[in-house]
Amino acid sequence: MIAFLERNHPKFFETLADKLTVSAKHQTEVRQRVEDIILSVCQKGDQALLHYADILDGTKATKVSELSVPTKDLKRAWDATDNEAKAALKVAHDNIAEYGEYQKLQSWQYTRTDGSILGQQVMPLDSAGIYVPGGKAAYPSSVLMNAIPAKVAGVKRIVMVVPTPGGIANPLVLATAYLCGVDEVWKIGGAHAVAALAYGTETIQAVDKITGPGNQYVAEAKRYVFGQVGIDMIAGPSEIVIIADDSANPDWVAADLFAQAEHDEMAQSIFITYSRTLADKVIDSIHKLLPSQPRSEIINRSLTERGVIILCETLEECLSVANYIAPEHLELMIQHPETVVHKIKHAGAIFVGEYSNEVFGDYCAGTNHVLPTSRTARFASPLGVYDFQKRIGILQLSRSSAHKLSPIADCLAQREHLYAHAFSARLRGKSDELH
Amino acid sequence: MIAFLERNHPKFFETLADKLTVSAKHQTEVRQRVEDIILSVCQKGDQALLHYADILDGTKATKVSELSVPTKDLKRAWDATDNEAKAALKVAHDNIAEYGEYQKLQSWQYTRTDGSILGQQVMPLDSAGIYVPGGKAAYPSSVLMNAIPAKVAGVKRIVMVVPTPGGIANPLVLATAYLCGVDEVWKIGGAHAVAALAYGTETIQAVDKITGPGNQYVAEAKRYVFGQVGIDMIAGPSEIVIIADDSANPDWVAADLFAQAEHDEMAQSIFITYSRTLADKVIDSIHKLLPSQPRSEIINRSLTERGVIILCETLEECLSVANYIAPEHLELMIQHPETVVHKIKHAGAIFVGEYSNEVFGDYCAGTNHVLPTSRTARFASPLGVYDFQKRIGILQLSRSSAHKLSPIADCLAQREHLYAHAFSARLRGKSDELH
Repeated sequence: MIAFLERNHPKFFETLADKLTVSAKHQTEVRQRVEDIILSVCQKGDQALLHYADILDGTKATKVSELSVPTKDLKRAWDATDNEAKAALKVAHDNIAEYGEYQKLQSWQYTRTDGSILGQQVMPLDSAGIYVPGGKAAYPSSVLMNAIPAKVAGVKRIVMVVPTPGGIANPLVLATAYLCGVDEVWKIGGAHAVAALAYGTETIQAVDKITGPGNQYVAEAKRYVFGQVGIDMIAGPSEIVIIADDSANPDWVAADLFAQAEHDEMAQSIFITYSRTLADKVIDSIHKLLPSQPRSEIINRSLTERGVIILCETLEECLSVANYIAPEHLELMIQHPETVVHKIKHAGAIFVGEYSNEVFGDYCAGTNHVLPTSRTARFASPLGVYDFQKRIGILQLSRSSAHKLSPIADCLAQREHLYAHAFSARLRGKSDELH
Repeated sequence: MIAFLERNHPKFFETLADKLTVSAKHQTEVRQRVEDIILSVCQKGDQALLHYADILDGTKATKVSELSVPTKDLKRAWDATDNEAKAALKVAHDNIAEYGEYQKLQSWQYTRTDGSILGQQVMPLDSAGIYVPGGKAAYPSSVLMNAIPAKVAGVKRIVMVVPTPGGIANPLVLATAYLCGVDEVWKIGGAHAVAALAYGTETIQAVDKITGPGNQYVAEAKRYVFGQVGIDMIAGPSEIVIIADDSANPDWVAADLFAQAEHDEMAQSIFITYSRTLADKVIDSIHKLLPSQPRSEIINRSLTERGVIILCETLEECLSVANYIAPEHLELMIQHPETVVHKIKHAGAIFVGEYSNEVFGDYCAGTNHVLPTSRTARFASPLGVYDFQKRIGILQLSRSSAHKLSPIADCLAQREHLYAHAFSARLRGKSDELH
């Protein structure tokens, strides 16, 4: 059911690359459709939004204001939430906010011996839009993971959009928005929601940055509006790599592979070990535990389609294969896992030890679950408070420093044929008192 | 020649918005052309690259390897550079590197009372591609501003691409690449260079992130490949806002407006003051100094097309208009400028005091000149060392912490109908010893 590769097979990397590849080609039709939708929202504003909310979200309204969920309705959803969920959300909230405080960028500056001051001033964004998937798959945890970092950063206006097929919003999503202090909620989704957040309409005011996961239309729309507003990342299918040795419980390994696989058939679960015994045991556990899983069908499809077990000869080899994969999630279920963490160069998040399964990170431990997917951990970072802050360069030169830098800037500007630059530099030169 | 607006005019913001607007519409033909070029490079690799280098860059070669500039040629260019330029580049290099050290992100972690450890591990990117404009407008300073932060971050492979019409590279660009320790230089530009860096070809190995300025084809290509690799930002026309009071030298204000305007006719120079006397003096200085400027024609065109002088009633009003504009560069030529820096919410960089003109920041003071343009300072930051680093989330939960979190994750996972997630959480619950 799940592919089995040996690291020392001559065609190992070829086969693995095949398994990792998600059709990376842009779908030209999707791009064209997204461009049409965005241009339409830019030109016709509210009217276009209502049109697409109707035909794409399945949400009918005569005015965009009807698509707003007022704060009193969010509070009502929170009040109606059972105590178990309330308590769980509160613990998750507090852990995520605590972790966020450590992520906060601080302003800094330093003074040179010539009295010049250089630094960076850090400020929160004024506003942020968070995209929360809705409908059948409604994820309160997406609200937690996007809204809390924005709040901790000090963003004054947090705007949530969520598609609500038939106009029905998921109550727990609304309750979580209340808990997180989301300022505005709009029942819209898709590329038109992204367009409204980026460019604004008569009723919806534009935001400065858009974060959060969505389908390929949402992803293409975010790519399109990048530059008009900031975006977090272009999310692809989700994946996990588990590295385990004989100290690991094979049932736990199997369960964590399942948790990844149950998302959808494109989700990818990879298990790497240097113990053939453990590999066999995990395969047994998969067969034993799968039938009792409520989502066994989708797990089976995902494991068959994209799952891989990789047998290496050493732990070092396991780590090196994991670095090649640059997985979104990396679990280390090995002895003394903390001793190898520094050898991981590429991963969205590392879950260290058997009690740190990905699921705790998904919901409540404190780390963010919005992570770079599909090998983008080579260059991208988890969503964090820093994504809702920005830096401003600060340069305060002393007169003596300007005197020293004047001929240098003059020289370099002239070499670039930027003569007004050179002139401006010369004015701050040693003869500055003449001016 | 330059527009004059009064802040208390009822249509002030309308008129200003018009002046600020650059046609933000995507050019569908540019997008299509870029997509064709990128898909062609993806499919045909080197062969496509040679084709486009010929027809678009004006650089003929029979093999891509001929487009490589080996390190010995970079060294030769450095050795052939005159001492004045060498000394200037070295000071600039050291100041930029010094500033970069302060930008470096550090790994961090904290331990909860239950023994759990949470943190983030910071790592440099493995490789970075820097795009340097070439040909008529060749900018050694672009090499400094892109390569040095990558180097300080610890990037092992820095790859520079630069278009070289007729195959002739600018010697100072090559010399600067040598000084900065650039590892590979390729004489290619345009969308095909971006495609080669993002996807790789038979000869050029792909990189993890692409930074640096370029024309609209380069900008669209970067947008297209975003996700396959990281990118820094989509750069637009450059702009400056100068806020000055009666303490300022009007010639210096005029010179700095010129320095911005000389880039190209889309560059924007804005001067804001609450002194009508100074406004008049600056206009006089513009008229007096413009004729002697070697690039007076382009300065004149830019000031006429996009330049603005804004008269406010108070300094507070000046600051608030500047925040609305969110300029790439903001110069404060006022008394006690350091006391208002914290009131600036949106700017790429702030140049504090009359001796801190933008030009020093452009070349040699230490701050980066790759800054968010066209109001993107609302959400974006200067290019910095942090752009060549990424973060990995670290979660190491203690057994007692897992016991506490188990029912919480179980509850939230079930509400999202992710039952394998819930199962994985329960395995780490209080009955964990049974497993």
